[in-house]
Amino acid sequence: MSTLTPAIDLSHHINQATQLRVPSPLKAIFKHMKTPGMISLASGLPHPSTFPFESLHVKVCAPDAKGIPGEKYTSTSSTTISVPKYPCVENEQNTLSIALQYSDATGSARLTSFMYDFTKRVMKPGYSDWQVLLHSGSTDGWSKVVSLMCEKDEYILVEEHTFSSAQAFWAPICKAAPVAIDHEGLIPEDLEDVLEHWDEKHPGSKRPHLLYTVPVGQNPTGATMGLERKKQIYDICVKHDVIICEDEPYYFLQFPRYVLPFQRCLPQPARYISEEEFVGSLVPTFLSLDYQGRVIRLETFSKTLGPGNRLGYFVCNPVFAERLLRATEVTTQTASGWSQAIVEQLIVSHWGHEGFLRWLMGLGDVYTTRRDWMCDLLSETFDLVSTGNSDELLAISKDSGKDGQKTPFFTFSPPRSGMFVYIKLHLEHTSSFKALKTEGEEDAENMWAQMFWESLIEEKVLLVPGDYYAPYIGRGQRVKPKPGVAFFRLAFCYESKEEMKLGIQRMGRVFAKYWDSEL
Amino acid sequence: MSTLTPAIDLSHHINQATQLRVPSPLKAIFKHMKTPGMISLASGLPHPSTFPFESLHVKVCAPDAKGIPGEKYTSTSSTTISVPKYPCVENEQNTLSIALQYSDATGSARLTSFMYDFTKRVMKPGYSDWQVLLHSGSTDGWSKVVSLMCEKDEYILVEEHTFSSAQAFWAPICKAAPVAIDHEGLIPEDLEDVLEHWDEKHPGSKRPHLLYTVPVGQNPTGATMGLERKKQIYDICVKHDVIICEDEPYYFLQFPRYVLPFQRCLPQPARYISEEEFVGSLVPTFLSLDYQGRVIRLETFSKTLGPGNRLGYFVCNPVFAERLLRATEVTTQTASGWSQAIVEQLIVSHWGHEGFLRWLMGLGDVYTTRRDWMCDLLSETFDLVSTGNSDELLAISKDSGKDGQKTPFFTFSPPRSGMFVYIKLHLEHTSSFKALKTEGEEDAENMWAQMFWESLIEEKVLLVPGDYYAPYIGRGQRVKPKPGVAFFRLAFCYESKEEMKLGIQRMGRVFAKYWDSEL
Repeated sequence: MSTLTPAIDLSHHINQATQLRVPSPLKAIFKHMKTPGMISLASGLPHPSTFPFESLHVKVCAPDAKGIPGEKYTSTSSTTISVPKYPCVENEQNTLSIALQYSDATGSARLTSFMYDFTKRVMKPGYSDWQVLLHSGSTDGWSKVVSLMCEKDEYILVEEHTFSSAQAFWAPICKAAPVAIDHEGLIPEDLEDVLEHWDEKHPGSKRPHLLYTVPVGQNPTGATMGLERKKQIYDICVKHDVIICEDEPYYFLQFPRYVLPFQRCLPQPARYISEEEFVGSLVPTFLSLDYQGRVIRLETFSKTLGPGNRLGYFVCNPVFAERLLRATEVTTQTASGWSQAIVEQLIVSHWGHEGFLRWLMGLGDVYTTRRDWMCDLLSETFDLVSTGNSDELLAISKDSGKDGQKTPFFTFSPPRSGMFVYIKLHLEHTSSFKALKTEGEEDAENMWAQMFWESLIEEKVLLVPGDYYAPYIGRGQRVKPKPGVAFFRLAFCYESKEEMKLGIQRMGRVFAKYWDSEL
Repeated sequence: MSTLTPAIDLSHHINQATQLRVPSPLKAIFKHMKTPGMISLASGLPHPSTFPFESLHVKVCAPDAKGIPGEKYTSTSSTTISVPKYPCVENEQNTLSIALQYSDATGSARLTSFMYDFTKRVMKPGYSDWQVLLHSGSTDGWSKVVSLMCEKDEYILVEEHTFSSAQAFWAPICKAAPVAIDHEGLIPEDLEDVLEHWDEKHPGSKRPHLLYTVPVGQNPTGATMGLERKKQIYDICVKHDVIICEDEPYYFLQFPRYVLPFQRCLPQPARYISEEEFVGSLVPTFLSLDYQGRVIRLETFSKTLGPGNRLGYFVCNPVFAERLLRATEVTTQTASGWSQAIVEQLIVSHWGHEGFLRWLMGLGDVYTTRRDWMCDLLSETFDLVSTGNSDELLAISKDSGKDGQKTPFFTFSPPRSGMFVYIKLHLEHTSSFKALKTEGEEDAENMWAQMFWESLIEEKVLLVPGDYYAPYIGRGQRVKPKPGVAFFRLAFCYESKEEMKLGIQRMGRVFAKYWDSEL
């Protein structure tokens, strides 16, 4: 096993305001409060007798409870976890008198330490002095990363279809430098091209030094970036001194390759024998390749324990972690004490590493089933044929038209992770699009997509139009759509199989109408 | 009853970045999701069957449980409140499947509505279209107010001793315009003076348009601003078009005037007969005077239900509320679902208005007792004599010195609210200070205070030095201390009476040493 080296100095990436942030003067006070025998008349902590809560009890699932995806489900093997107000045993840290009190902005030390060990085991970061710092969910985390690094009017590197809520934070202050993507996410050649020719194409603007990416289960495209692609992207970021923010809410929702129903073997074998095999099956992260400390990984419990926990964590180099902690002190302070106490009690005290991994394995199975539902249901309404371009499938009509041909509607790559199927509609054969082009409409693609979306809504099925994910390139302007295509995002995470079926049938009718085709 | 008018247009106070903030495109999606019969393949919500929590149970105190201040205390009349995963009755909104799901950034509608009604009853805002918006604690709230209104290098009006954590947020980007304070807080004449002569004294700098103030139980001074003073300050803010951010964590911790033990009648009468009498006893807020919508009130549950809830709310005009909501969407999203579910279940479902008010009345009693402990204990170690300047007391030695005189150490005003006693040390009679002055030390006051603080620590009693609260006036520079005085903050919220007694005795010994006096 090679010896890892510490992070290199990347402090020049920190923006001016963050450089000027001073530690809370109360830190000196906290230090002295720990002196044995000290009487503190210093701190403005309300006495826990003024908290009207005496104990907390949460009925939780066993880690291998899977339930029926999409059904209300009560685990038959549930346990109650409890957090008392005051310690029942000496030095007990997870009590309400501590969880509901002001604390250091680092939050629960036990939870942080658990996630550190978990990250070490699962991600194997590529340098030695990385740290874990809790945040209040990845939306909070990302806003702190932008506030750490970006100056006004700077450019941020993003996928050409980028997560809309992430860009909503920086859109009023920064601009997007979009990078082309395919079924594996960011295309290294395009990233290199954007950075290499930056000065020619953007004279007077600073070259971007922050890349925002969702490498696994990309939102909206569902793309998953493999190891080789990640190595190429990482090397380019080293060459051009770019910090990678790896936002990974869907990391543990990874699936086997999709197989069409008629090609599928039944019964399917169990995916994993052990937790180690599960860990080994996960695609390596940017963090694992990061020998310099230039990756900021955003982890969240939103997709694994529920979004309402508003709890997650950064994994990053110690210089960034210290500045992010300073920012945390003056904004969120800590994640909710209830969230921390419950998650700590569940995964640290009750489940442990093995239990948490078993829970994640179960989630992977749930989302595999759901991904299969959606793709299978698409294959019921449309014929799905391989395009020969990697895993890409083309959806065509089941029946031939008057010309003896089957109508091609859209292409998509069945995702290997995440929650989304992103479909690419080929508009050139629709009369409605041709009419818009004939009328000389410059924005024909978006106009057509809006019209199609409204027809879907009339048919009572709701998708997200692809233009929601078009990067803001400044002054409220967004990247123009590619000629002759439109995108829509379908989520397979929430609706029941029956609803999904009905939704896809409705969508099929709208396709048939617009393509003037039978299904 | 007069008819209230809506807020005037104050949108020119919103900074450029916030003006450019766009609503989330997903809003259009949310609208359609509510259409009956709609099948949504749009939203990326994890199905609640993937949340490993089945029910929540919290043992809570009865609203009139007071306990013994500062003792571990188990209420004899506790109840268990429960939140199920799925509705037990139709349309039940407070369930874990909702609380732990993504939600609109407005958070719990029932809790918001309850706090709206509560605010209307207790504060009686002075205009018609004010709104309530949840935040994740007042530190989060204040950071959002600064991010709403302030541009880089702007000045913010603050009390000349200002809450250190509040200024830690803006210190890297803005500067303080300090306003003099006395035992009632901000001095109107000084505020008028600062604003009236701004352009002369700060040529080229924009006149400040945001005032940050803690009107009740001011941190660190403990000052409470009466109604007349508030009217004067409000009128000045109208005249000069200043927005008032009223940060009020201690509003419900209000006390009767402090009476020295030997003047006290025993037994003391009960403070209030009814909830209405309690509400009537509270000093009116800036919000109640606000006929234009220029007050942003920061409310928090930190001092009333525990800081770890990380939950509070803004009360402000609808234009500010809409922009604060946009900022919430892209940062914290919502406060923790656990915090919201528990607080909603406790105060909305279980306590109701009357119960919540009774709980607050009880807290007022707890902190009155604690304030009295501290002042009584000061009167045991020192002699306290009136200075004739309002309620101000002078602490002098109990015994006369060789010259037959008692030594004067410090002055303070026993607080009428909050958690703090702020003592003002008169240094001119200490040989150590005289020595520093003789040596020509420019920063003699701070040097002396640091020395004194270290001596306190050696004696094992910890106070907060007053210079922690000195406003940052730009380039890392802070307001210089007044000549010949030093301040220290004593908190009476946390330590037991015995510890407080010991702490004040130790402090007394350090005073005696520095003043070369007997106690």
